Amino acid sequence: MKKAYLISTGTELLIGSTIDTNSVFLSEKLLALGIRVTGKSTIGDNPESIRNAFNIGLGSADIVISTGGLGPTFDDLTKKVASEVMGTTLELRPEEAERLQAFFERRRRKMPEINLKQAKFPPEAEVLANPLGTAPGMYLKKGEKVIALLPGPPREMRPMYLNELEPLLCRDFRLERKSVMRTIKILGPGESQVEELIAEVMKNPVGCSLALIAYEGEVHIRVTAEGEDLDHSRGIFDSISNRIQEKIGHNIFGYDDDSLSSVVAGLLKDQQKTIAVAESCTGGLLGRLLTDLPGSSSYFWGGVISYSNNAKTKMLNVDNAILDKYGAVSPQTAEAMARGIVKQSGADIGVSITGIAGPEGGTDSKPVGLVYIGLAEGGFCQSKELRFVGDRNGIRMLSAKSALDIVRRHLQK
Amino acid sequence: MKKAYLISTGTELLIGSTIDTNSVFLSEKLLALGIRVTGKSTIGDNPESIRNAFNIGLGSADIVISTGGLGPTFDDLTKKVASEVMGTTLELRPEEAERLQAFFERRRRKMPEINLKQAKFPPEAEVLANPLGTAPGMYLKKGEKVIALLPGPPREMRPMYLNELEPLLCRDFRLERKSVMRTIKILGPGESQVEELIAEVMKNPVGCSLALIAYEGEVHIRVTAEGEDLDHSRGIFDSISNRIQEKIGHNIFGYDDDSLSSVVAGLLKDQQKTIAVAESCTGGLLGRLLTDLPGSSSYFWGGVISYSNNAKTKMLNVDNAILDKYGAVSPQTAEAMARGIVKQSGADIGVSITGIAGPEGGTDSKPVGLVYIGLAEGGFCQSKELRFVGDRNGIRMLSAKSALDIVRRHLQK
Repeated sequence: MKKAYLISTGTELLIGSTIDTNSVFLSEKLLALGIRVTGKSTIGDNPESIRNAFNIGLGSADIVISTGGLGPTFDDLTKKVASEVMGTTLELRPEEAERLQAFFERRRRKMPEINLKQAKFPPEAEVLANPLGTAPGMYLKKGEKVIALLPGPPREMRPMYLNELEPLLCRDFRLERKSVMRTIKILGPGESQVEELIAEVMKNPVGCSLALIAYEGEVHIRVTAEGEDLDHSRGIFDSISNRIQEKIGHNIFGYDDDSLSSVVAGLLKDQQKTIAVAESCTGGLLGRLLTDLPGSSSYFWGGVISYSNNAKTKMLNVDNAILDKYGAVSPQTAEAMARGIVKQSGADIGVSITGIAGPEGGTDSKPVGLVYIGLAEGGFCQSKELRFVGDRNGIRMLSAKSALDIVRRHLQK
Repeated sequence: MKKAYLISTGTELLIGSTIDTNSVFLSEKLLALGIRVTGKSTIGDNPESIRNAFNIGLGSADIVISTGGLGPTFDDLTKKVASEVMGTTLELRPEEAERLQAFFERRRRKMPEINLKQAKFPPEAEVLANPLGTAPGMYLKKGEKVIALLPGPPREMRPMYLNELEPLLCRDFRLERKSVMRTIKILGPGESQVEELIAEVMKNPVGCSLALIAYEGEVHIRVTAEGEDLDHSRGIFDSISNRIQEKIGHNIFGYDDDSLSSVVAGLLKDQQKTIAVAESCTGGLLGRLLTDLPGSSSYFWGGVISYSNNAKTKMLNVDNAILDKYGAVSPQTAEAMARGIVKQSGADIGVSITGIAGPEGGTDSKPVGLVYIGLAEGGFCQSKELRFVGDRNGIRMLSAKSALDIVRRHLQK
C-alpha cells in the first residue's frame, strides 16, 4: 500500500480559530484509492518549518500533499521550499503569466507585480488548474516520490484534488479504484456493544478492514474491501455486509450518505404518508431534522413544540388529568401527545417526545435522560421508554434520532 | 514568547473518521497563557513516527504536548518513546499501581496485567491525575524543555490540561496570565463588512492582535491584549473594545461564551417575559436554539412548527385570505403568525419565521433566501425582510439566529 503524508499550512490552523477539515477529506479520498495517510503536520509560514515537514514527509511516505500557503504573498515560500527539497528551482511560465493577466483583465484590474510569483513553477512540474481562484496547484514527481501543492480554501482544494490530482496519482502509481469503501450506519446499540456483536466478523474480516466510529449517538462501521478489482471488492463487501447484517439486523438504518432523516423521508414518500410532530424536551429539534432535506413539505405537516404543560393541553388536547396523574414525562403523556397531534393535523403519523434533558429536573424515579417517544397512526398508538446517558444536548440529539428511528421501524414493518 | 509543539496520536485521526478538536482547544488555551503553538503533527502508533515528532517538537519549541495514545495497549509506546527522547526510562510507581488496583476493585473487576504499564513513569516525571479514566498523564521537564502527555478523549484531556498541566507550566515558565484573550460577537454585517468597518482599528491596534473569524453566520473578533500585567491588558482590551463598539454598535450581541440564545435568555429572565415561536422554513430550529440552555422552561412556552399552510391556518389562525393574497412568504403572513402564536399561547412575545430555504421553490420576485421575521408583543407587531445567500441549512441557521437577534434588539430597546 502506498503511503501519503499531509502538510497543512496556515497560522489560522495554529491559533485555534479554524479546524482543519482538508486533511479529513484527503485522508478519506486517498484511502479509497488504496493510499494510506501515515502522518500529517500543521505548520506556520516559515521556511524552516516547511522544509522540515517536507523532509519528514518524503522520508516516511511516497506522496506528500500540502494544502494552503499558495496565496500571492506566501505562494513563493511553500512552492520555493518544496521545489528546493525536490532539488529543483522555479522558473516563470509565460502561459501561466498570460492566464493570470487574463484573470485580472476580465475583472478590469491591473495585475499586481506580486502575483507574477503564481506563474512560476519548476520545469519538471505539472500545473494543477484552479478555475475557482488565482493560485494554481502543483504536482512534481521525482524518482518514486511525489509532492503536490493544493490551495487552502476547501471549495478550491476539493475540486482540484478530484479533477486534477487524483488522475495524476492514478497515472503515476498505476492506481485504480480497486477498493470499495462503504459505511454501515447503526442506531441503537453503543460502540462497545456493536464491537461485541460483530467480534467474530472483526476477527476474520476476509479481505476487508473495519473501523468503528461513534458519531452523535450513531455507530458507523467503515468497511474497506480490497479485492483484485472493483467487482471483486464489491463482492467482498457484500459478503461481509451480509455477515454484519446477520449480527446487527434491524439496527442498521442505512449506508454511506444515508441519514435517519433521509431514510425516513424516503419511506414516507414511498408510502405517500404525512407526518406531524409533538416535541417537548427536544424543543423543535425533531422538526428541524425532518426538514433538513429539500422537498420535505411533501411529507411534513409541521407540529407543536409543547414545551410547557399549557402548550400540551391547549395545542394537543392532552388531558390535564393525565398530566396530574402520570406527569409530563410518562408513557401516557407521550401517547396523548402523539394522538393529539394526529388529530390536530390530520397527518397520517404523529410522533411525540417527552423527557428530561437535564442537567436539572431529574428525580430518583424519573432521572435525567429518561425519555418517552410516542407514535400514533390511525387507531394504533404506542410509546417506548428510553434511558440515555450524556449531557443536555447529547440527550436531546439522541431523543430526536431515536424518534426518527422508531418511525423508520414502524414504516419498515 | 514561549513556543509549543502539539502531537496528536491516533489512527482514527489519520483515516479521516475523527476531527482533531484537542489541538484547537490547546492552541487557544496556550495562547491565552502567552505560549504560541508553532506547529503540530498527527501520527499513527509506530515508535519511529512518535520519536520523529517528539524530536521535531523539542528542536523547534520549548514545550511539546501530546494527546492520545495513553490507553493500556498503546500507553507504553508513547510514554516509552517520549521518555527515551528525554534521556530517561520508565519505572513502576507502587502508589500508581495501587491507585489502578483500587480503580478496578471499585468496579469489582480484576485488573488485567497489561494495565500495570499505566503505573510506570520516569523517576523525574510528575503524574497528571485523571479522575475520569484509567490513563494518568505525565509531565517531564529537563533543562529548559518540557514534554507533557495527555489522554485523547476530550472529556478527560480538557480538565487534565486545566487542573493539572496549566499550573505546572505557569510554575516552570514563570508564566502568569498577563494577556487577555476575548471574543467580540457580531450578527448582521458579514466578515468583509466588519473588516471594512474596523479597518482603522485594525491598522492601529495598540497592544492588541485582532483576528476575524466567521462562524455560522456570526462574525467573531478575537482580541488578544498583551500588556505588562493582567490589569494593564484589561485596560488595553477595554479601550480597543470601545473603539470597536463605536464602529459596530448594536450589531455586537455578546462577548466570549455568550450565544444569541444565552443573551436572549438573560434578557427574558431579567424582564420576566415569556416567549413562543411560530416557525415555517426553520422547522423547529428556533425552538431548539431557545431550549439549548437548562432552565429554558421559565421563559419558553413552546410554539408551532407551521410548515404547511394548513398548520398556519389551523394552529395559528392565519387568515386564508392573507395566504391567498400575499403568499406564505410575506410580511403579512409573518405578522399574522406572530400575532397568532401570542394569542394561542398567552406568552408575552411571539416571534415567527417564514421564508424560502431552497434549493427549490424560489421565483424571480421571491428568490431562495428571502425570509420574513415577525415579532409581536401586546399591541405591537412588526416584520423584517431579510435576504440570505447560502445553502439550505445555512439559510435556515441564519434565519433562526436573526430571529433571536430581532428579539434581543426588541428587548434591549
